[in-house]
Amino acid sequence: MSDSFRSILQTVVPDDGTRDSLISSVIPFLLGSVAEIAKALRESHHVATMGTANSFGDNQLNVDVEAEKLIRKAISRCPFILTASSEEDPVERAVRDKSGTGQYCVAFDPLDGSSIIPANWTVGTILSIWDGPSALGQVPAQRQVAAILGVYGPRTTAVVAVRIPETGRRTCFEVALDDKGWIMTKWRVTRPTLTLLSSNSTGASYFSPANLRAAAQDPRYMSLVTSYIARQYTLRYAGGLVPDVVHMLVQGKGVYLSPVTAQSKAKLRRLYELCPLALVVECAGGEAVDPSDGRRVLETVVTSCDERSGVVFGSGEEVRAAVGVLMGKE
Amino acid sequence: MSDSFRSILQTVVPDDGTRDSLISSVIPFLLGSVAEIAKALRESHHVATMGTANSFGDNQLNVDVEAEKLIRKAISRCPFILTASSEEDPVERAVRDKSGTGQYCVAFDPLDGSSIIPANWTVGTILSIWDGPSALGQVPAQRQVAAILGVYGPRTTAVVAVRIPETGRRTCFEVALDDKGWIMTKWRVTRPTLTLLSSNSTGASYFSPANLRAAAQDPRYMSLVTSYIARQYTLRYAGGLVPDVVHMLVQGKGVYLSPVTAQSKAKLRRLYELCPLALVVECAGGEAVDPSDGRRVLETVVTSCDERSGVVFGSGEEVRAAVGVLMGKE
Repeated sequence: MSDSFRSILQTVVPDDGTRDSLISSVIPFLLGSVAEIAKALRESHHVATMGTANSFGDNQLNVDVEAEKLIRKAISRCPFILTASSEEDPVERAVRDKSGTGQYCVAFDPLDGSSIIPANWTVGTILSIWDGPSALGQVPAQRQVAAILGVYGPRTTAVVAVRIPETGRRTCFEVALDDKGWIMTKWRVTRPTLTLLSSNSTGASYFSPANLRAAAQDPRYMSLVTSYIARQYTLRYAGGLVPDVVHMLVQGKGVYLSPVTAQSKAKLRRLYELCPLALVVECAGGEAVDPSDGRRVLETVVTSCDERSGVVFGSGEEVRAAVGVLMGKE
Repeated sequence: MSDSFRSILQTVVPDDGTRDSLISSVIPFLLGSVAEIAKALRESHHVATMGTANSFGDNQLNVDVEAEKLIRKAISRCPFILTASSEEDPVERAVRDKSGTGQYCVAFDPLDGSSIIPANWTVGTILSIWDGPSALGQVPAQRQVAAILGVYGPRTTAVVAVRIPETGRRTCFEVALDDKGWIMTKWRVTRPTLTLLSSNSTGASYFSPANLRAAAQDPRYMSLVTSYIARQYTLRYAGGLVPDVVHMLVQGKGVYLSPVTAQSKAKLRRLYELCPLALVVECAGGEAVDPSDGRRVLETVVTSCDERSGVVFGSGEEVRAAVGVLMGKE
C-alpha cells in the first residue's frame, strides 16, 4: 500500500498504537483478497451455477465459491482476526487458535450481485471489521470499526471506511488497484475523501429504487418513485448493492431505497450488507435509516447472522424525506 | 480467435469467399481493439476529464481519447476497411489509399457510458461494419452487415452480430477474452446463441427506462413505467446503452425504452448507437422501433453522422406493446 493510503488511516486511529494492526495487517490482508477476487473474476469465462445452494437458498455461482475461498485464505493469514462469518457460511467461527493476539471479528459477503454477473455488470465484495470476537448482540455504531467495498468493474477499486469509537474520527476514501504486471498488491488512493452532500442544491440528484416490487403493493413507495421522476431525478439502478451505493458516493449525492412489504420481504442481511454499507454511508457524511421504524441502521443490535431489513441510504436530507413518505408522515 | 468462433461466422457468410475478409481480418482487428481498450481501462486510475469537448459538446474523458486511438490504430492496420468515422470524430474519412482492396466502412462509438465510468460501472464500445465506402444515404437493413459490442466489466466480453444480405443468414453470440498472461488475443465463445424471446410467458421480464426525464413531460411514458412496476417487471438500468442491452440479451428478454419529448430531446445517435444496437437486437430475434413513427430503426436511411432519435429495443411483443402506448394507440 502506498504511503498516502497509510497516512489517511493514521489520521483516524489513536496515537497509542492500539489500532496499528488495522493499518498494518487487517485492512491490507482484506484488500489483498479483493485483488485476488478481481483476478479470479477476469478469468471466469463460464459463469455457471454450481448446482448447489447456500444456507439462505440462493443459487451459488462458481465465482461466489471462489471469492469465499480467497477471503477465508486472507483471513487465516492475518493474526489479528479472531473470528469470521460470511453470507455463504453464516456462522461466526474462530479462525484458529490465536494465542491471545486476535482483536477483530470479520463479517463478509464474498460476491454481492449474483443476478448481474452473467451480463458482466460491475459487482462487489462487502467486508466489515468489528471489535471483539463477535458482531452479534453488539450495537453496530459502537463495535463496527471499518468496512471495505471491493468494486469489480472495468477497473478494480475499493471504498474503505473507518470510524474509531475511542477517537470519534472517521474517514471514507477510494483506492484503485495498480494492475500492471504480475504483482497485484499495490493500491493507490484515487479519491482521498468521499462525501455525500446533505443538500441537493447543487443540481438534480440520483435515485436507486431497489425491491421495486414493493411499490406494486405500497402506494407510498409508488408515489415516492413517481415524484422522483416528476422532479427529474436521474435514475441509476444496477441491482447490485455495492455498485449502486458506490455510484452515489462518487457522484456525492443520491438516495438508495429498499423498503419492504408483507409480500415483498426484506432481502438485505443486516450483518453482511446493511451494517457495512451504513458505516460507509455515515463515514461519507450520509445517513442510513430503516424505513419501517425510522431508526438509524447502526443503532439496532444484530441478534442473528440471518437478520434482514429494509433500508434507505444516501444524502441526509434525501433519506429523511424518503423515510417520511414511506412511514406515512408526509 | 478460436475455431468455434470462426465456425459460427462461417455458417452465415456465402461460400464463394466474397466475405472471407470479414472473418479473417475485419472482425478480428476490431475485437483486437476491444481487448486493448479493456487493458487501457484497467490501468486508468485517474479518470479525469480532458478539459476538451468533442464536436457534439460532450465532456471527453481521457479514456475516451485513448479508446478512439486504439480503434483507429486497429482500423489502419486492416486492409479491408475503406473509411471510418466515430462519435468522437464524426466525419467519414478514407483510412488510407487501399489500392482497391477496401470493402467496408466502420462507424464506432469508442467508449459509451461516460457518466458511469467514474463509479467503475460496466461500460462498452460500439462498432459497426457497413458495405461500401459510406453508411450515409443507405438503408441500414441492407448495408450494415455486422456489429460488435465490447463490454468492459469484471470480465471482458463482446457480443458479435452478423447479418449477410445476400444469404439472409444471421447470428448473434457472445465471446469472452482469455486474460491470462500477456497476450490478449484469444477470444472464447461463451454463449453461442443470444436470443431475445418474443413471449414473456417464461416469468417476469426486465425493463430499462432511459431518458426518464421525458416521463415528467409525457404522461404516456409515465403510465408505461408505472405499469411495469405494477406488473412487477424487474428494473435494471445502468444508464449505459451497451450494458443495458447486453443485460437483456443475456437474460433472453426485456425492453429498453428511450422515448423523446420536446424538452427531453433524443440523445442517441443513429449511426454510432441506434443502428448497431438495432442490428444486434434483430440478430437475436428481437425488435428495434422508433416510437415517434413506429418504424423499424433499420428501415430509416441515415443522412448525417449526427442524426439522433428515440428507440424501443427488446423482445418483440414487449417492443410492440410499448410503442403502442407511447404512440397513444393503447
